[in-house]
Amino acid sequence: MSEKLKEIAEHWRPKIVGELNGQEVKLVKFQGEFVWHHHEAEDELFLGISGRFRIEFRERVVDVGPGEFIIVPRGIEHRTVADEEASVLLFEPAAVRNTGNIIDPKLTAPMGDRLD
Amino acid sequence: MSEKLKEIAEHWRPKIVGELNGQEVKLVKFQGEFVWHHHEAEDELFLGISGRFRIEFRERVVDVGPGEFIIVPRGIEHRTVADEEASVLLFEPAAVRNTGNIIDPKLTAPMGDRLD
Repeated sequence: MSEKLKEIAEHWRPKIVGELNGQEVKLVKFQGEFVWHHHEAEDELFLGISGRFRIEFRERVVDVGPGEFIIVPRGIEHRTVADEEASVLLFEPAAVRNTGNIIDPKLTAPMGDRLD
Repeated sequence: MSEKLKEIAEHWRPKIVGELNGQEVKLVKFQGEFVWHHHEAEDELFLGISGRFRIEFRERVVDVGPGEFIIVPRGIEHRTVADEEASVLLFEPAAVRNTGNIIDPKLTAPMGDRLD
């Protein structure tokens, strides 16, 4: 995945790198603060590849480093934050909007972007 | 995941470590040769964590190391081989038999084994 990550310059723009069983595997780089949001019908898995980030929930914060993963269940409000750049693998159903129930002029990413 | 991998002693016995969207995340250790098989209706993702392994297809072989992944599409006959121990993350639909269409007295693993 390190070669594919080199092709990703922007933050918060997930790129599809694999598809299976109606799910997608995406790579994304985080830096800074994302927007609070939730996904109505999709659980999301975040697997740390490099750097550290955290997932903030309303009641707690989970720190995630390389080789660690967290699953955020559907319906749960959350926000991702990375003080320094972090590279992350996502597993989630196909065609999920990254900002869930929110449309954010800067952070809402185009869907369906692929790396070959 | 390194802590969870310490709890896995046997080879070829996937342990469920996460569930989302009807899919399961499993950890497994490979060593030696698996059995040729396919999965009728499930695609499988193999992500290398440590060590190297290969997936043999009838027409080619793919070598997979840490931080690399491969998706084996449903219906495609394959066999996993690791000359030395390799730790692997699997992502696949819930309740998949590890040996697919084959029942092997040694290699077919119990389904539903979980690590907490």
